[in-house]
Amino acid sequence: MPEHDHSTTPATPVTIIGLGAMGTALADAFLAAGHPTTVWNRSPGRVEALVARGARRANSAADAVAAGPLVIACVLDYPALHEILDASVTEALRGRTLVNLTNGIPGQARATADWAREHGIEYLDGGIMAIPPTVATPGAFFLYSGPDEVLDAHRATLEVLGEVHHLGTDPGLAALQDLALLTGMYGMFAGILQAFALVDSEGIPTKSFAPMLRRWLTDMAISVDLFAQRIDADDHDTGVMNTLAMQTTGVANLAQAGREQGVDVELLAPLYALMQRRVADGHGQGDVAGLFELIRRPRVAG
Amino acid sequence: MPEHDHSTTPATPVTIIGLGAMGTALADAFLAAGHPTTVWNRSPGRVEALVARGARRANSAADAVAAGPLVIACVLDYPALHEILDASVTEALRGRTLVNLTNGIPGQARATADWAREHGIEYLDGGIMAIPPTVATPGAFFLYSGPDEVLDAHRATLEVLGEVHHLGTDPGLAALQDLALLTGMYGMFAGILQAFALVDSEGIPTKSFAPMLRRWLTDMAISVDLFAQRIDADDHDTGVMNTLAMQTTGVANLAQAGREQGVDVELLAPLYALMQRRVADGHGQGDVAGLFELIRRPRVAG
Repeated sequence: MPEHDHSTTPATPVTIIGLGAMGTALADAFLAAGHPTTVWNRSPGRVEALVARGARRANSAADAVAAGPLVIACVLDYPALHEILDASVTEALRGRTLVNLTNGIPGQARATADWAREHGIEYLDGGIMAIPPTVATPGAFFLYSGPDEVLDAHRATLEVLGEVHHLGTDPGLAALQDLALLTGMYGMFAGILQAFALVDSEGIPTKSFAPMLRRWLTDMAISVDLFAQRIDADDHDTGVMNTLAMQTTGVANLAQAGREQGVDVELLAPLYALMQRRVADGHGQGDVAGLFELIRRPRVAG
Repeated sequence: MPEHDHSTTPATPVTIIGLGAMGTALADAFLAAGHPTTVWNRSPGRVEALVARGARRANSAADAVAAGPLVIACVLDYPALHEILDASVTEALRGRTLVNLTNGIPGQARATADWAREHGIEYLDGGIMAIPPTVATPGAFFLYSGPDEVLDAHRATLEVLGEVHHLGTDPGLAALQDLALLTGMYGMFAGILQAFALVDSEGIPTKSFAPMLRRWLTDMAISVDLFAQRIDADDHDTGVMNTLAMQTTGVANLAQAGREQGVDVELLAPLYALMQRRVADGHGQGDVAGLFELIRRPRVAG
């Protein structure tokens, strides 16, 4: 669904600060959607190629910010962002909206929201649930937290990048859930690397095994719901999956196979240690989701 | 597609040895497909319920094996299997086919294939890529390794359980790839648990976060192909994903968020250590798939 009828409403001008692989993908998405797009990067590296594709070059961060009502930042981290937001840039941002898609922690997001409010800047904190090639494709979704009215004012423009998920007004909510999703992805990365190392040790080409692994992981994403059901029911002694004792046998086989194949299989050792601890605690016939009890923050009594 | 026209060909009788959650699901699948199904379990626990659903009870493992041409074993591990396969059971198996779906390592699969050959037993080793509730649903697939003619003779019956993937004649191939897929799943489990612990620490209900996590992990299963492409190209200095340096910043944020939220985020610590090692080795601008170089078995100079 196009957000604008270009014959009647010009697309909102957008400024992108930070042109790593992700910032470049964001700028390209806005260019493709017909938004006047101004770009700035601390080092001029990728500016040229974007200008060749229709982006406007700004001579300074302050100039970039002054180009329109909506500024999207995507830099390495919050310290890098605050270095860019010097006095002149801060002054130029007054009355505009800053959407910060830089990866960070909830405390940094809340502090930056406070800073923005003190300087008369509208602020949304966000997280990008996409990799550069999937920006602006149906797979992409973006997390935002901050005031409803700020999000609503720019929703149509932000939808160019991917689905808009507004998580609430607390500015820390997007950063927290972004990190939680990232850690889910890192778990998948660890599993993929370990699986490839095992089949590689037998001379099985990675690419011939990959389709089966991809399918299996796609199927097993159902585990998210199965775990959530057990956790929400606060019941880990029943469940539809194989018992923890059965799974622990599988893990012992994995360790043995690693020794026989000459492959280090320690990438998931902390998980396996939790499994053994939970079995030792008497929950061998229970559900693997019960491991959650060993890593959740202890509940405060009262 | 039904495998038999029941008006002309009776469905092959099947024996299931081992009635844990998975063995029970296998027996139920054959019962639902109209196969005469004989069951046996070392402890009589789940036999009653299956008999009520139409299964035939065997008085001994030898009697169970003698009930038909196809015996499927699904027990805790290979030592448990070989305890069941005593002299009388071995004798009863002669001339029949044993399909062993017990989780194990390639060496155990090969040794059991040797044992079967010595005793005139046809043998397939296999792995179950399903959880009990997804057996005999479109999501399920099963790995088999062993002789073509043995698989072909029972392919239609085995398709009752799920898609049949024949990986080759070496009996160890199914066990190895089963373990590799399992380790991929354990990586996903670790990521899910860590993600839930983070959002739980902020009081966000698991079930409200679960749909987003499931969707993200389903989307990110594309990483399997992206990693395989880089590994097969033997090129980790370019790639479409965020750079390793960028990802390492995300990991530092995760550690910091864990401290601030009071959540232990060590479940994926070995992966993060690899990431830091790879950046220290000068590959910060490279692809995360390059971590494979740090865990694969060292290539033997040839």
